[in-house]
Amino acid sequence: MIFGLHAVIEAIQSGKAIDKILLKKDLQSELSRELSELLRGRFIPIQRVPQERLDRITRKNHQGIIAFVSAVDYQHLEDLIPSIYEQGKDPFIVLLDGVTDVRNFGAIARTCECAGVNAIAIPSTGSVSVTADAMKTSSGALNHLPVCKERTIHGTLCFLRQSGLRVIAASEKAAEPYTAISYEGPIALVLGGEDTGISMDNLRIADHIVRIPQHGVIKSLNVSAAAAVLIYEALRQRN
Amino acid sequence: MIFGLHAVIEAIQSGKAIDKILLKKDLQSELSRELSELLRGRFIPIQRVPQERLDRITRKNHQGIIAFVSAVDYQHLEDLIPSIYEQGKDPFIVLLDGVTDVRNFGAIARTCECAGVNAIAIPSTGSVSVTADAMKTSSGALNHLPVCKERTIHGTLCFLRQSGLRVIAASEKAAEPYTAISYEGPIALVLGGEDTGISMDNLRIADHIVRIPQHGVIKSLNVSAAAAVLIYEALRQRN
Repeated sequence: MIFGLHAVIEAIQSGKAIDKILLKKDLQSELSRELSELLRGRFIPIQRVPQERLDRITRKNHQGIIAFVSAVDYQHLEDLIPSIYEQGKDPFIVLLDGVTDVRNFGAIARTCECAGVNAIAIPSTGSVSVTADAMKTSSGALNHLPVCKERTIHGTLCFLRQSGLRVIAASEKAAEPYTAISYEGPIALVLGGEDTGISMDNLRIADHIVRIPQHGVIKSLNVSAAAAVLIYEALRQRN
Repeated sequence: MIFGLHAVIEAIQSGKAIDKILLKKDLQSELSRELSELLRGRFIPIQRVPQERLDRITRKNHQGIIAFVSAVDYQHLEDLIPSIYEQGKDPFIVLLDGVTDVRNFGAIARTCECAGVNAIAIPSTGSVSVTADAMKTSSGALNHLPVCKERTIHGTLCFLRQSGLRVIAASEKAAEPYTAISYEGPIALVLGGEDTGISMDNLRIADHIVRIPQHGVIKSLNVSAAAAVLIYEALRQRN
């Protein structure tokens, strides 16, 4: 956590990974204009909140601004993918589209790390971050697994397809069982949020949409259980 | 929750599923002797606690005794197994050996229900119960999936083997990968606790001990992720 305008501006300039900034509702000053300038194009979520909310977070002189620094340094798939290919490996990336529960995020990260997935990608806004709870649920896996915070999942999937990855999306409404397709070669596996699933836009550009068979009354697995099933089916086929 | 000696005794006599009884440390009376008599051979966990602990749970006149009634009616594998065979099906049972986290229990129950597992079995003491948290994490699956509370997992495994089920145990230290064995026919899948894993006694009577390959630094999946991987590999082979 960093607070005070100068300290936050310096942190952004030095390239620190910021998960979120809380800004006092009516903050107006020369410095806050400098901050706005700096934030343009960086996709850091900003929340305007009342003074009291900031006061509850810290008793120190926050000057109307508190920034939450990420527990890990986020990476970028644009840098990672070429380096995976250069090592002679087929990339295996997991992307989360609208997963909002940090415990599910942590649990999926742990499974990814155990399975040797190359990276997990989350969108920069409206999604999870590497919070203390996520880190704990991941059993520390988030310290070892590259986490990529990308502007949008849609743009990222387009980039991954251009980079030769097949996009495999999981949806309860799909016709194709997950065991009917091949997971060999470069792949990107997309998992949807707890309530909303994967957005239509993202389903549309998927090469395969697969479902996990359901034989009960509940009719849907928890997203972290679904992740475990799909990731290990991929691993079974890839080895 | 039921409190008062008479009410608790009546609940036990009527066959209500009791998860746990809290008893005031120095409770001595004719009725409490009747209770002891009644509890003999029923394997209901009893905890002796100070008066204040009971007072914190309810302000009503608890008379030194509070019983927690289970949210579901527990079943018994001795009744279930024959009826599964009679339906012309091969039983698929999941047993938890020393799992103590109710969220993991709920998550595994959800996966079991979705996959059409016939029942989940837990030991009557030192393990999880169907608490509100377990129910919530299971997404209601614990209302649909038969839950069997058995005296010991060891005795239950012996009974299941006699009933023609192959016992498959999961352990990180096993040599055989989980994909190398067959899950067809009647099977019992045993999963171990978060810290301790499956007890040596139970590993000894398993027909197969299998591991899930680990390619990362963390070296162990969460037990609910491991359950999802194994249960769906079984399903893939059985269908």
